[in-house]
Order: sequence, then structure tokens, then C-alpha cells
Amino acid sequence: MLGLKRNYIQDDMKRSDILKICALAAPLQACTQEPAHPNIIFFLVDDFGWVDTEVAFGPEDYPQNHRHDTPNFLALSRESAILTNAYACPLSSPTRTSIMTGLNSAHTRITNPLASVRGTDNTCPGEVLETADWNVNGLNPAVPGYEDNVERSFYATPFVRLLRDAGYYTIHVGKAHWATAGTPGSNPYNMGFNVNVAGGVVEFSKCGYRSEDNYGNLAGGRAVPYTVQNMTEYYGSGLHLTQALTREALKTLEYPVQEGKPFYLYMSQYAVHTPIQDDPRFYSKYLERGMDEGQARFASMVEGVDVALGEIRSWLEEKGIADNTVIIIMGDNGGNSENLAKGGVRHTQNKPLREGKGSCYEGGTRVPMIVYWKGHVTPGTMLNTPVICEDLFPTILDIAGVEERPTVQTSDGESLYRLLTDGSAYVAGLHPGSRREAYATVVPESISGLDPQRYIVSHYPHQWKPYPIEDIDYLSSIRSGDWKLVYRMLSRSLELYNLADDIGEQHDVAAEHADIVAVLAKALSERLRNWNAGMPVCKGSGLPVPYPDELAAALCDTTDIAANRDI
Amino acid sequence: MLGLKRNYIQDDMKRSDILKICALAAPLQACTQEPAHPNIIFFLVDDFGWVDTEVAFGPEDYPQNHRHDTPNFLALSRESAILTNAYACPLSSPTRTSIMTGLNSAHTRITNPLASVRGTDNTCPGEVLETADWNVNGLNPAVPGYEDNVERSFYATPFVRLLRDAGYYTIHVGKAHWATAGTPGSNPYNMGFNVNVAGGVVEFSKCGYRSEDNYGNLAGGRAVPYTVQNMTEYYGSGLHLTQALTREALKTLEYPVQEGKPFYLYMSQYAVHTPIQDDPRFYSKYLERGMDEGQARFASMVEGVDVALGEIRSWLEEKGIADNTVIIIMGDNGGNSENLAKGGVRHTQNKPLREGKGSCYEGGTRVPMIVYWKGHVTPGTMLNTPVICEDLFPTILDIAGVEERPTVQTSDGESLYRLLTDGSAYVAGLHPGSRREAYATVVPESISGLDPQRYIVSHYPHQWKPYPIEDIDYLSSIRSGDWKLVYRMLSRSLELYNLADDIGEQHDVAAEHADIVAVLAKALSERLRNWNAGMPVCKGSGLPVPYPDELAAALCDTTDIAANRDI
Repeated sequence: MLGLKRNYIQDDMKRSDILKICALAAPLQACTQEPAHPNIIFFLVDDFGWVDTEVAFGPEDYPQNHRHDTPNFLALSRESAILTNAYACPLSSPTRTSIMTGLNSAHTRITNPLASVRGTDNTCPGEVLETADWNVNGLNPAVPGYEDNVERSFYATPFVRLLRDAGYYTIHVGKAHWATAGTPGSNPYNMGFNVNVAGGVVEFSKCGYRSEDNYGNLAGGRAVPYTVQNMTEYYGSGLHLTQALTREALKTLEYPVQEGKPFYLYMSQYAVHTPIQDDPRFYSKYLERGMDEGQARFASMVEGVDVALGEIRSWLEEKGIADNTVIIIMGDNGGNSENLAKGGVRHTQNKPLREGKGSCYEGGTRVPMIVYWKGHVTPGTMLNTPVICEDLFPTILDIAGVEERPTVQTSDGESLYRLLTDGSAYVAGLHPGSRREAYATVVPESISGLDPQRYIVSHYPHQWKPYPIEDIDYLSSIRSGDWKLVYRMLSRSLELYNLADDIGEQHDVAAEHADIVAVLAKALSERLRNWNAGMPVCKGSGLPVPYPDELAAALCDTTDIAANRDI
Repeated sequence: MLGLKRNYIQDDMKRSDILKICALAAPLQACTQEPAHPNIIFFLVDDFGWVDTEVAFGPEDYPQNHRHDTPNFLALSRESAILTNAYACPLSSPTRTSIMTGLNSAHTRITNPLASVRGTDNTCPGEVLETADWNVNGLNPAVPGYEDNVERSFYATPFVRLLRDAGYYTIHVGKAHWATAGTPGSNPYNMGFNVNVAGGVVEFSKCGYRSEDNYGNLAGGRAVPYTVQNMTEYYGSGLHLTQALTREALKTLEYPVQEGKPFYLYMSQYAVHTPIQDDPRFYSKYLERGMDEGQARFASMVEGVDVALGEIRSWLEEKGIADNTVIIIMGDNGGNSENLAKGGVRHTQNKPLREGKGSCYEGGTRVPMIVYWKGHVTPGTMLNTPVICEDLFPTILDIAGVEERPTVQTSDGESLYRLLTDGSAYVAGLHPGSRREAYATVVPESISGLDPQRYIVSHYPHQWKPYPIEDIDYLSSIRSGDWKLVYRMLSRSLELYNLADDIGEQHDVAAEHADIVAVLAKALSERLRNWNAGMPVCKGSGLPVPYPDELAAALCDTTDIAANRDI
């Protein structure tokens, strides 16, 4: 039950220090008030690119930030902290299961989007490498009443169960995608949700956003077994799926609000994933602006999500609970730059970032992240410490004030609580003079509890599509501070980028910084080994691809290079 | 919020009278305890025949009562009141919407099972009569946020919303079938449920109970748009749908039990509706007993439902809430005697009752009903007062102790609360010597608040199947006491049966009791007129079929008969 207390003051800080910072910048409320159990809305947008909204997460406000009208995201961001260096996994299920478990996807071995049918490995066969072994059945909950007998599946304690056990009323609306059909993980109830609307196993590329198509529930040859469920009310209504889901979400929120119970709403948008189907409210406007049809369709979908956010915020205001409701915005992976339906020129949609969805380059993993929490997060601040999806597990539990956390796993993620609260207050106090300056400002570990040089690991040991894509398949990466190492497993090469100078990862400086390469390769390898991460297997030798520190050593030793090449 | 008080003592009874009855028969608890807000489980079984279980609802224990092993129904009935003269409508949606509104189906004009697609009239064209106009889009909720703009739909306040508003946690598991897709009524949330599992718009005859078929969610040509939803966890699990739904129901109950909130569970079984697909746990046993395959399949489905009931009861015991949980068992219409898949001989499955599902003869409308409420209902009693599905609206609200009932409609049904509580105590005190004697015992109106001669009206102004069925199509009936009038609209004839002597409706005594025919025809006609009931239309004349009192008058006046025939 709720009633637990959090200890706001960390051991390494004196209360007087906090009060000093508070007096400087943060609303007094944040410093004096006992922790409540705020409502939490996690607003997760599918395939949401880093530059898909008007909110500039970069050191510059890029032209791409002005393609889509997103006044609600922009307004929210001004009242929130913007996390400029937020990472998801390169693909959907890995991110979703990382959030649920607090573990890196290399650790859960859920490294690819899951198929619908149990036991299906939907990675694509490569010519040179065999796909890495991975948990094709996804995440299953380690909870009473279920034995851990689903093969090729990772068992962990979902954080939503901890929220529910602590007295939160937990609501799932939208896309789940944690596990295959025929397993407990496919059912949001087992993950800890009291209520589920539309969450199940969905082959979404075959479904749809159009009420005229019953959101994919059509008779005959067009019918597919895994479609959007629970939405019969809106069939033929003319409402885009994003609108319909928003209405359902608000309906299910009535109960906890009426009962005065804190709620956790996982508002998991199907948009802006393929199929790219226009939201007719906004489509023609973008055509008139000169976009091609694909671009205009996609733009209308993004604006639909923006309006959904606005509707939710209006509702919170009406109910008088906006001030006590935390809103976390995030994308589940980078924007899709591989799909022709989005129009424009492929592999450019996330510029200045390189590549998109599926890739360990920044375009695939760097995502929008905004945290609104009135009185706790200082509005309009930029937080530049790198953060990653597995951080959400401890972060949300901290925000919720849940101290009892019996789990079978130990979180890889770290709580962003102090970064968001004390960190945002600290940044606000610095009054940075320019966006570039603000972007260079880092919250020290003594304030945030987070080492700004902390390692951010991404790992994709598969081929995504039936055809090879050089900047997506078989990549692994690690970031620390401004430095980022990319391990190309197919060519067994290491690249090094300095993101401060080269956010687009255009200038490989590995040859000039062998020492940094070695450090990062070692750090990445240690994590992959400790996590028993899946590695692709060389078809020729039948041996797994070497860890990157085996290559890095080789960079200084030609004998080793030759030895590695024989594998 | 809960905290309302019910007035147990009716105006026409003195408290001393109640205490006398209590002292005689009822547990003291029922007389002295303040009304709590008990949990309520409404266990509705689809196409559940009157003689499908071992519970004998008749004046005799018929051979048909011993076809299926139903120890859990039997055990429950011994701790409950058995309502021997309980009526549903002849078909599914009419009953389900009557329960939800407290109105007779002739009043809602929802007189046929609904199609899935909005606006579809799925009654079948007859040769002589046009189908009656009816509300093809079913029931929609008259609630804030929705205008009453769905055409051919009845708007009313669903009782589940009143339960929820009074503080009940309301859970829907299974079949809904109140409205077509594209209307708010198709969504259990709008009807007042906090939680919905598997309730939507289902064309169930095309779906299934088998996990191997994903309960109907199959790819390719076999896929249908309206299938059982939210059950991905169980795909391929080997669990019959009845088992899987039971597990889901128990999961969703954890929350209100943990929170100490009263719950209403609408456990709406898809079974034992077609398709008749065996529950493999029990199938071979029935084959070994000499049943044909259809009979054995059906028997196994019935036993599956029986086991589901047992599992729910065990769970209630484990949680320590069995004594504070009311269980209401009911069928949504008579057993299906028209479907070849059930095996045996058609039109005999409900014997001694005439016909089955679809019919206004007893086989179509008389259904099992059992009410368990420890300490309030005297165990093992037979209550013979005729009751009908629309009575559930006020009954459940009375049991729940909900006094605030803002509704747009005025209930046609009457509360069974006093019949169940005081009535069962009264009957228990009589110690009837035999089943027949017990069956003839009627609770006086002064005890139950219900006139034992109250009118029970059924109305089916359509042709059900593509081919005509004489004892199903275009029938209307009214019962009072032992007398039952059947109006055959196609032949414009009236039949009269005395159910005390002739439960099988084999001996039409209309000619011998013209006075009773006239009284009943008048009573039926008054109701049909007041409710603006849909009447079939003669194709020849374009005029609606006459009301039965127009015919009854004609029985005494040949001029009028001729006049009627011209219509």
C-alpha cells in the first residue's frame, strides 16, 4: 500500500546544499513538501524520431524540427525538462521490455521486434553471419502462478506490478509488444495492469489506423489474426486510431480519479509506426505546404499524436489533477528512415542524425524525451546527461514513491529522479547564454547521482530486413560522454565518433584515438560478456563474432588481427 | 459512494412479521445484520437449457437432467434458492439488453440477436410476413458524453453504471452482444464496466473455443473480423475458451479483493453456444456413455462450464469471501434445439419443454436460475414465482444496496429481493412433502412483493432462420399463473396452455377457456401497445399483424374475424 516515504536527501548531500539550490531556482514546493504519489502518464510514441517535433533536442534547432506542427509537444516541453541525450534501443520490443525490466536489451537477449507466433525467429538470414541467438518469445513475468516454462524467453519482475502492489491503479492503452501469443507476457494483466485496452499481440504492419478498415479487423483475405482489439465502438466512426485510443484512455482514467487513487497510464501509441495512413484532419495542410504524399501522411500522423497529448492535458486540467500528474514522453526507437511510405528521401528523415530505426547509429536510438512534473522539475531546462530506456524502471518507481521492490532481476538502469528534480534545478540556476552553451552544460554527479560519462550500450546482432542494410545490421555501440564507439560485426571494424563535434557520426576518428577505442571496446565487451549477450555467428567457422575488445587489441597487434581474421 | 442504506422493511409488512418468519426459518444473521454491499457474480451461460444440468428446475427430476455431469451446479443449488419459473427472452441480445435496462425486449424493440455490422437487419425474410421493425443496432447507453444519435437503437441507463457510481468495481469477462460495431453500446466501458476482457462484437458462430484456432483468430480465409479478443495468452495453450476466460476473470478479481472493494463480475460465458466444439477434458467420457459425437461435444462443453463455476467458488473460498459473494446463475435463452451439431434429435433437447432457443414456447424462454447468497437466501429452497430477465435490473441493485438510481427509463422488471430473502425463508418454513408439492407452493405477494399471477411476456416478431420454423417464427406469448397464451402471428391464432398440467404445451385449451384467452390477449395487447412493440407486417396488405385482443374479440364475433382477415 502507498504510505511509504522516500528519502529525498541522498547520503552524499547535506540538506543545506539542497535548500541552497532550491532557494536559487526551484519552486519552494519541491523542497518543503512531503512526497506524494503523483499520477504518472507514460506517453510512448512508436517510431518517434528525434527531430519529428518542434521540440529541439539538439544543440541546434534543425530544419527538420519544423516539418510538423506540434504545438502541444512544444508547450509541454516549455513546462518540463527536456532530456536531450535520451536513448531507446534500435527497435520496438527491445525498448519496451527494457523499460519493463530495467535491463539492457543485450541482457534480456530480446534484441529484435517480436513476431506474433510463439517460437518464430523473424530476424532475416544474412549471407555471412547467422543471426544471434535471442529470446524470440520476449519477456515473461516472474510472478506467482506462472512457472518460468516459456522457452527462449526472459523472465523478470515487471515494474508495473510493483506500482500496482503499491496501490497505483495501472492502465494499459495501446501497443504492448512484450511477448508472443501463447505466453503470459502477451497479456497486460500479467505485467501488472488493472485495465487493458487494445494491448495484445499485433502484427501492426498488416493492421491499420482507419476506422473504415475497422483498424485492421476486416473480413476475407485482408483479415489478419493479430489486429487491434477492443475498438469496436469506433469502427466506421471516421476517427483515426490515435483519436480513438485517446478517448478510451480518458474513459479508463475516470475511475481512479473518482476514487482518488494514484494512477499509472501507459499510453502506448501505435502511431507513428507503419502503415503510414493519413490522419484526415491534417493531411491536406501538409500537401499544400509542398510535401509529397508520404511525407504529408506521416506529418498528419505526428500531428494527430500531438493533438492527443493536448487532449489528455486538457482533461487533466478539467479534472484539476494536472499539477499532480507526471507526464513522460518518449519514443520507442529512432524514426523509421527505411520505409518508402514515409516519402521524402530514405535515410535522411532523422538528419542531422545518421540512419534511423534499427540502427545503433544515433538516428536509430536517440529519441525524444520530455518529463513534466510541476513543482519538481524546473520548467524549460535541458538535461544533457545521457539516459537510456532501462533507466525508466527505477525512475518511475522513484517518482511514484515505491520503496518495496522485490524483483528477480537487478536493474541495469539508474534512476533519473535526482537528475530530473535536483538536476533541473541546478541547470536552471546556471542561466546558460545560448542553446549550444546549455547543451554543453552537464549536471555533475554530485547533484544528479549520475556520472555524465556513464556508458550507454546498444546492441543489434541481427539482420533486420530480407536485404542487408549496412548501417543497421549487426551493429553494437557504446557511448561515454562525447565519445561513441560503433562495432560493425559484419566487417569486424570499430568506428569512433565525437558526438560533440560530429553528431551525425560522419567522421570516424578511431585511428586517431586508439586509446579511447580500447577503453570503450573493453567496456562494451565487459557488458556483453556479463550479460551473455547474443552474438552473430560466422557461417564459415561456426564461431561467434569476437567481442570488440578482441578486435581493439588487434588494432595494436597485427598478429592478433590476422588471428581474428581466421575466425 | 457506498454508504447508502436500504430499507429492509417494506411498507406493507410490520417488522414483527419479518422477525417471526426469520425466527422460523432464516439464519438470524439475515434479520439482524445491517446490509453490507456484497460482491456479486452474475454467471450467465449462453444457450443454457432448462434441463442441461443435474439441477432439476421442474416439478419432476427429468431424465434429461442426468445427461451431463454438473456437480458444481448441483452443489451450488443446494446452498441456494432455485428459481423454477425463470424466463429469459427467446434469444441472446434481447435478454442481455433486458437485463441491462430492466425493460422487456418488446419495449426496447431489441427482439433479435444483433449482427456485428451497424445497420444490418439479420432477421430472415418470410414469405407471408415482413419482419417487424426493430432496433437493429441494439442498446446504447444514455450517459454523459454521448448524444443519442445512433439510429435504430434504444437508449437507456445501464444498471452497471449505477453499480459503478455506487462504488462497485465492475468487471466484464466474456460475451457482450448489446450493440453493433461502430456504436458506444458495443464497448463494455460505456455500459459501466471498469474492466473488460474479451467483450466486444463477436460473430461467434464463425469463431471458436479452441486454443489451437486462437479462438477464431486465424489467418487467411478462415479469419473473421469479429472474433474473441484479449486472449492471446492462451493461443495454442490447449485450454478451452471456458477455461481461459475463467482464469482471466479470477485475475481481474484480485484487485478489488486486495482493495477491499465490492465487485460486480459479469461472467458471461460464450459457452454453450455454437460452434459445438468439445472440451477435450470430458469428451471421451460421454462418447463412452453412448452419446453420439454431437451430444458428447455439447456435454463436454456443459461440464466445462460446471468446472468453471467450481473454480470460481474455490477461489472465493481461498480468498475468504465466499460468504459475502452473491452468485446468480442464469441462461440467456433456452437450449438450442435447432442445431444439428448438438447431435441427438432436433427439437427434443429441452424436453419436457416444447421447442428451444428462438421460441416463445417454454423451451425457448425458460432457463436455469439459481441465486446463492449465504445468510440471506435460505438454502435448497424452490421459488416458483415466475420471474423474467428484466427483473435482474432492480434485483441486483437491491442486493447491492444501491438506492441512487437516476435512469432515463422506468423499469418493467420487479425486484426479486424480497422473494429471494423473505420468500425463501417462507418456503423453507413450509416443509413441503414432495417435489410436486414444493413446486405448487407459491410465495404470497405479502411476503415477496410479487404477485404470483404477474404477467410474463415474450415477443418474437421475426423469422429466425432462412427457412421457416413453425414453433419459433412470429410468436408472442403471455403467462399468468399456470395459464399461458401463445399468439401465432403468422396464422393469427391463439393457443392456451395450462402449464401446471401441461408443461410441454401439448394440449391447446383455448376453445374451452375463451374467457381466459380474452383476458390474456388483452393483457398482452396492452403491453405490446404501451411498449410500441414491433409487429410483423402482412406483405399482402402492408398492414401490421393485429394485436391479439383484436383476434380474441373476433373469436366471439364472426364479423370481426372476417374484418381481421381482410387486413
